Amino acid sequence: MLIKNIMKKFFKVTDLPEVLSLSGRFEALGVEKTPTHEATGRILGEDIKSDVNLPDFARSTMDGYATHAADTFGASQGNPAILTVKGAVSMGRTPDFSIQPGEAAKISTGGMLPESADSVVMIEYSEIIDETTIEVFKAVAPGDHSIAKGEDFKKGESVLFRGQRLRPQDVGVLAAFGKQMAPVYKKPEVAIISTGDEIVSPEETPGPGQIRDINTYTLAGMIIKAGGIPKIMGIVPDSFSDIREKCLRAFDEADMALISGGSSVGARDYTVDAISSMPESEILVHGISISPGKPTILAAVGKKPFWGLPGHVASAMVVFDRVVRPFLEHIGGLAPEFKKQRRILARLSRNISSAQGRVDYVRVRLENRDGVLVAEPLLGKSGLINTMVKANALLEIGINTEGLDKGAMVETMAL
Amino acid sequence: MLIKNIMKKFFKVTDLPEVLSLSGRFEALGVEKTPTHEATGRILGEDIKSDVNLPDFARSTMDGYATHAADTFGASQGNPAILTVKGAVSMGRTPDFSIQPGEAAKISTGGMLPESADSVVMIEYSEIIDETTIEVFKAVAPGDHSIAKGEDFKKGESVLFRGQRLRPQDVGVLAAFGKQMAPVYKKPEVAIISTGDEIVSPEETPGPGQIRDINTYTLAGMIIKAGGIPKIMGIVPDSFSDIREKCLRAFDEADMALISGGSSVGARDYTVDAISSMPESEILVHGISISPGKPTILAAVGKKPFWGLPGHVASAMVVFDRVVRPFLEHIGGLAPEFKKQRRILARLSRNISSAQGRVDYVRVRLENRDGVLVAEPLLGKSGLINTMVKANALLEIGINTEGLDKGAMVETMAL
Repeated sequence: MLIKNIMKKFFKVTDLPEVLSLSGRFEALGVEKTPTHEATGRILGEDIKSDVNLPDFARSTMDGYATHAADTFGASQGNPAILTVKGAVSMGRTPDFSIQPGEAAKISTGGMLPESADSVVMIEYSEIIDETTIEVFKAVAPGDHSIAKGEDFKKGESVLFRGQRLRPQDVGVLAAFGKQMAPVYKKPEVAIISTGDEIVSPEETPGPGQIRDINTYTLAGMIIKAGGIPKIMGIVPDSFSDIREKCLRAFDEADMALISGGSSVGARDYTVDAISSMPESEILVHGISISPGKPTILAAVGKKPFWGLPGHVASAMVVFDRVVRPFLEHIGGLAPEFKKQRRILARLSRNISSAQGRVDYVRVRLENRDGVLVAEPLLGKSGLINTMVKANALLEIGINTEGLDKGAMVETMAL
Repeated sequence: MLIKNIMKKFFKVTDLPEVLSLSGRFEALGVEKTPTHEATGRILGEDIKSDVNLPDFARSTMDGYATHAADTFGASQGNPAILTVKGAVSMGRTPDFSIQPGEAAKISTGGMLPESADSVVMIEYSEIIDETTIEVFKAVAPGDHSIAKGEDFKKGESVLFRGQRLRPQDVGVLAAFGKQMAPVYKKPEVAIISTGDEIVSPEETPGPGQIRDINTYTLAGMIIKAGGIPKIMGIVPDSFSDIREKCLRAFDEADMALISGGSSVGARDYTVDAISSMPESEILVHGISISPGKPTILAAVGKKPFWGLPGHVASAMVVFDRVVRPFLEHIGGLAPEFKKQRRILARLSRNISSAQGRVDYVRVRLENRDGVLVAEPLLGKSGLINTMVKANALLEIGINTEGLDKGAMVETMAL
């Protein structure tokens, strides 16, 4: 046992970029169909090209008169153009007439321009002379106040891309192309196993020396936010066989597993041993050069990522956000070019030191002070959740940086 | 009809801040209970105070020995402190012994400190001499490597606040306090009615002069993103009685209604007339001094907000984001102090002009060019959706600003 512990202690810690590059070992899940009106936030499973011209006909964007623009050139209040009204366009119908030079057609917003009309005169710049004659007081150019056939999207044009997260406007475009069902990647199901002889479930009243399970619930929320489906597997005691049994169930029922807890060396050993004992299991990472979060374990069990997360809740959250989430997004189909995370610039409120040789994540509270966004570091033990509740962002301090000075502009990531 | 139109044309346009202040006329929905593990993203319905000390006992955060810190003062590699090991702490139990000065107790991470112990010596800085004796090579201060009773949250302390949106860590705190069900505001149900004789549903193939309904699907996505539940009411022709009938159904079934379409003056009239004819209806706003989005209508029907949105899809999206969403959030319980929207600073790629007397919203694409975030304006007709698909942010140009210069730093809001 002593030798084993020493061996594990000297297990080579892996740098963060190398850990993240391992996501390529895992495959994206399959693609399913979901009703388009519920597809906002889902990851698109195939490229979408325009299969029609959108719109498929020239439409008016104003109430007025469809015209030949050339007939209005030079028109003004003092010198109006005089046009013959050939008819009125009915909404949702092809006009049963065309217009010749010198002619116009009454049209409402959204109406189809008659053949050969190339523009619309706004009703505000016209006056009715008699039933078939109008005056126009302002010139229009071809294309004015109308949308040409294919002006929104041309037939065959690339519109949306596999691996992008669908926004409301993207969902609107799918509707425009007649797709009632959207092809999207399956949402990753992520099993959460909490370990620890001292952990009880929230419905229980903790006895002396016991605490309620916080990690399962925090991680479930992070999984939901990242687009996955949490599968709560419950609490297991610190025992090899119990952990192994839950891991086997997680392998059957989920696409990825998080085993959280076991901060003591002995408990961590059980987690490593249980994962290692599973069929087709390979420990890929045993320790990451980040703080908090160093004692993180990543294994491939078959084709599924299994994680041993630190038991301290703030550590588990940081590891989830910076390390696990990119894997979840990867198996959920999110393409790298759509993964960019917005960084929020803020001014650091005081000096912070940091050890070289590891990436430090400092919880900060972003506060607007007299119009300046200030990042206030919240120092606290990583076994506490209160700093995560008070924090609203993380500040990353690079592996070769010794610390940051008060007043420095820093980039933070929303929590 | 002519007089009516003229009257409507001169209906006083309302400034945006005045429109937004009208949300106070509407009440927040009721509070319901939802399973805590699904509560991420929901709005908390009551203040949460800590009803226990968290943790309720002093816990170790490391593997090592619980000690009296004073016994280790001055300890070093050359001059270790020698302590008697009184016993070992079992996880999840109260130690059945206390320690006196000069004594220590073996303890794992998460274990309960024996009575009178005030700190933990890390195992790395200790050496076992015999079964009951250890040497300690490094001094610890009281509180080191342990969490005191109530250090995370003290009994009676305010923890979470009514009206805040629950993040994963907040959900974790609810679990810590034993709340399996979370009190949250009901999600607003928002009816979407699309009007227009030329509009067909996505499952239909548009005939000549017809287009598929984009607005319903785009708005449904925006409602989901804003925390509401869309209720798709379908497409109605431009007719007073059909629109009125749908509005009555929307009033019965939803907490708010959006009537989108009817960009022509005639169709807008039907919408206004239908809303006005409903019981306890009052038109509050008929036109807003923003662009796009001027022809927006807001009515109170009973205690529910009813909106007439522009038919052009980009206009409808801008109005939803800047005007409707704050109302949705308000009736959904989101408190003003939690509403802050992050603005993204970017450098404007070229001059843009803007009319005074209204707030202009320009769609922009934020692009990272050689490390500088550049906002590229996407000009295009508001009846097109392609600019919204290419855009990823909105730039607001204030009511008294004539335009913005190329190279200016501007604040944008993610779309």
